[in-house]
Amino acid sequence: MGGEPVAQINITHESPSFWRVSLENPPINVFGAQAVVEMRALLDAAENDDELTVIVFESANPDYFIAHWDLADDLSRLAGEPPPVTGQQPFVDVMVRLSRLPVLTVSKIRGRARGAGSEFVLATDIRFASRERTLIGQFEMGAGSVPPGGGAPARLPRLVGRGRALEILVGAEDFDGDLAERYGYVNRAVPDAELDQFVTEFATRVAAFDPAAVAEMKSWVDATTLPDESEFPPQSAAFAERLGGPRYQSWADHAFAAGLQRPGDLEERLGTRSVEF
Amino acid sequence: MGGEPVAQINITHESPSFWRVSLENPPINVFGAQAVVEMRALLDAAENDDELTVIVFESANPDYFIAHWDLADDLSRLAGEPPPVTGQQPFVDVMVRLSRLPVLTVSKIRGRARGAGSEFVLATDIRFASRERTLIGQFEMGAGSVPPGGGAPARLPRLVGRGRALEILVGAEDFDGDLAERYGYVNRAVPDAELDQFVTEFATRVAAFDPAAVAEMKSWVDATTLPDESEFPPQSAAFAERLGGPRYQSWADHAFAAGLQRPGDLEERLGTRSVEF
Amino acid sequence: MGGEPVAQINITHESPSFWRVSLENPPINVFGAQAVVEMRALLDAAENDDELTVIVFESANPDYFIAHWDLADDLSRLAGEPPPVTGQQPFVDVMVRLSRLPVLTVSKIRGRARGAGSEFVLATDIRFASRERTLIGQFEMGAGSVPPGGGAPARLPRLVGRGRALEILVGAEDFDGDLAERYGYVNRAVPDAELDQFVTEFATRVAAFDPAAVAEMKSWVDATTLPDESEFPPQSAAFAERLGGPRYQSWADHAFAAGLQRPGDLEERLGTRSVEF
Repeated sequence: MGGEPVAQINITHESPSFWRVSLENPPINVFGAQAVVEMRALLDAAENDDELTVIVFESANPDYFIAHWDLADDLSRLAGEPPPVTGQQPFVDVMVRLSRLPVLTVSKIRGRARGAGSEFVLATDIRFASRERTLIGQFEMGAGSVPPGGGAPARLPRLVGRGRALEILVGAEDFDGDLAERYGYVNRAVPDAELDQFVTEFATRVAAFDPAAVAEMKSWVDATTLPDESEFPPQSAAFAERLGGPRYQSWADHAFAAGLQRPGDLEERLGTRSVEF
Repeated sequence: MGGEPVAQINITHESPSFWRVSLENPPINVFGAQAVVEMRALLDAAENDDELTVIVFESANPDYFIAHWDLADDLSRLAGEPPPVTGQQPFVDVMVRLSRLPVLTVSKIRGRARGAGSEFVLATDIRFASRERTLIGQFEMGAGSVPPGGGAPARLPRLVGRGRALEILVGAEDFDGDLAERYGYVNRAVPDAELDQFVTEFATRVAAFDPAAVAEMKSWVDATTLPDESEFPPQSAAFAERLGGPRYQSWADHAFAAGLQRPGDLEERLGTRSVEF
Repeated sequence: MGGEPVAQINITHESPSFWRVSLENPPINVFGAQAVVEMRALLDAAENDDELTVIVFESANPDYFIAHWDLADDLSRLAGEPPPVTGQQPFVDVMVRLSRLPVLTVSKIRGRARGAGSEFVLATDIRFASRERTLIGQFEMGAGSVPPGGGAPARLPRLVGRGRALEILVGAEDFDGDLAERYGYVNRAVPDAELDQFVTEFATRVAAFDPAAVAEMKSWVDATTLPDESEFPPQSAAFAERLGGPRYQSWADHAFAAGLQRPGDLEERLGTRSVEF
C-alpha cells in the first residue's frame, strides 16, 4: 500500500544468454498498465544486452497464460510515464518492440491466452502450446463487438492465411492446442507433461548459439514477415473507440456482474458460443 | 418455357443479419451465365444492406457444391446485361465482388467443388468442409491443359503457399476433406453429421455482432490478403484462349460423349488420375 | 583420376516431357562444386527444352537425399567456370535458376535433407516426403552458429510463416516427415512403401499436360511467391563470412574428427539436440 506494486513480470536469468520470464498477476493474469510499464523495463534491458540470445515467456498460473487486457484498468498508471518509443498506442508499442527484439522469443502457452494474451504470443517469435491445456483466441468480437486492437488483425493473416484469420478474428472463439496447431496459430502443440522440458531444451540449445548470428537471421526474417507498422494505429483507435461505446459498455456491465476478471465459469468459457449477453 | 428461368441461387433470410444462400442447378450444379446474373443481384443487395453481417453458401445437392463452370454455356445470356462493374471477366467480376463484400462469407462445402466451384469457395472468406463428402480441386489442367482462369492462381498461393498451390493448380487432382484441411485449402474439415449444425451455430454467433465492426475488421484483413486485381485479367484471358483451342476442344468432345455435365462416373471421378483422354 | 569425375547428377529421360534426376555422391550425398557445375548443365538443357514439363529429383541413397553442403570443398573446381548467370553466389545461382524453371519440379525426399539439401528441395516447386524416412532441417546454426546462406531464410518464411520459419532456422533441428507436413515444410508425407509409385504417377500425369500451359501457370505463381532476389546476397555473404570464422572452424575441427561427411552416427544425428561441441 503506497509502495511499489508486486511485480507482474519476473525475470529469471537462467544464464547470461537465456532469460525465463514469468507472468503473474493473480487471480487470472489480466494484462494492464502495470504490465506495460514492466514490459518497457524488460525491453529496455533486452534491447541493450549483447549476450542475451533467447527469452522464454511463461505463466505462473497454469490456467491462464494471459486472460486478456485488464478491462477495469483506466491506464492512469501510465500518466507519469514517458511516451511510447514507437509512436504506437502503449500496449501495441510494447508488442512492436517485443516482435523486433534481436533475440529469439518463445511463448510457452499453458492455460488461456485470449485477446491481448493471444496478441502477446503473436508478437513473440515462436509459440509452443500445451496440447491439453491451451485455449487461445480473440474473444473481443464476442464482448460487445470490439475488433481486436493490439495487433491480431495485422499479424494473424500473415501467419495463418486469410480464411483462418477471418475465422479467428470475426468468429471470436477459443481454439484448443490441437486446432491451434492445425491452423498454424501456434508452432506446435506438445503434450502437457512434456512441455516444460521440451521448451527448456529448445531454449537451452538456442542459448548456446552466437547471439549476433541469431540477431542477423531474425533481421532477415523480420524484413519479410513483420506487419507494416502503419496498420496498427487505425486498429488500436477502433478498439479504443468501441470500448467507449454503448455496445461494449452494456456487455461489460453484464460481464463484470457475472464474474469477469474473477476465477470461475465466465472467464473459463469466455471464448465459447454459450457466452452471450 | 419463355418465362423466367428457375432460380439457381436462392436466398433465405434467416434473420436481417444472416442470409443462407442455396446453390441449385440440377442435375450436378454447374455454374454458368445465369448464375453470374443471379450473383450480381445478390451482390447488389448485399453491398447495400446495412444489417447484413454473414452469408452462408451451401448446395441443394449433397454430391455437388458446384461441379465446375458450365462448359456448354456460350455466355449469350449475358449479351443484354450491363458490363461487369470491376472491369473483370464476368465470372471473375462476381468473385471479386464476393471477396470484397463487407460481410463475412462462409462456404459450407459438401460434395464436389471443382474448377469454378473451387474458385467460388476461395472467393468466400471461410471454408468449412464435410470431412467425408468433400472433393475439391482445380481439375482444369486435366481437361485439355487449361490453366484455371477464375482466380485460383492468384488466391491459392496466398492461402496455402507456393508448394501446395503449384501441386493443386498443375497436378489438377481432387483433395478430400482431410487433405484439404491439412493443406489449408479449407479452414476445417468437420464430420459430415455435424457440419450443418456447426456452420449454423457459427453463423448465428457472427450474425449477432455489429455489422459495422465486422466490416471494419474485414477491411483490415482484405488490405493485406486479397490479390492485386491486376493478376486476374491475364489469367482469365489465357483460360478463354485455351478453351477455344484444339487441345481443349478434343478433350471436350470426348468428355461430353463420355458423360460430362451429367450425373455419373465421369463427373464423379473428374479430378482423378484415371480420367484421361 | 585425371579424367572426368563420376557424374553426381544423372538424368533419365522417362519421356521427352518427364526427366528423372538422381543425385548420387557417395557415401552420403554431400553437395559441392561439382554438383553445381552439373546442375548448370542440367539447367541449361531444361531452360531450352520446349517439350520438358516435369522433373523429379530423387536420391540414389535412401538414407541421404542431400546430406548438406560439402564442407570439405574449397570451390576451386569452379575457378575455370563461367560466372553465375544470375549474379548470385554459385550455389544460390543454381537454386534461383531451379526455382525459375518453366517446368514443374518435384523433390521426392527420402533420407536426410539438411542445410543445402533443405535449400535444394525448397528451390523446387513441390516436396513429397517419405513419412518414415525423412529428416529435413537447417542444421547450420548448430554447426558453429552459421546462418543458412543458400536461400532458406528467404524461402521458408513465405512457405511456413514467421513462427515456424524462425523455429526451423534458429532452432536448427531435424523435422521428420509427419512434422514437416504439419509445418507445411513439405507438401505431403507419403508412406515410404507408396512414395515411389505416388510420385511417378503424379509426374506422369503432369507430363501429359501442355508444357506451355504449365509454364504459364508457374509464371503467375512465381510472380507472387518467389523471394525478391536482393534478399539472397547478404545471406550468402554472412554464411561465407562465418564459415571463415573461428566459431565454425572450431566446430568443424571437432566434427570432422568425429565423423562429419562419413557414414555413421554423427551424420545420422546432425540435427539433434545431442550433437554439440
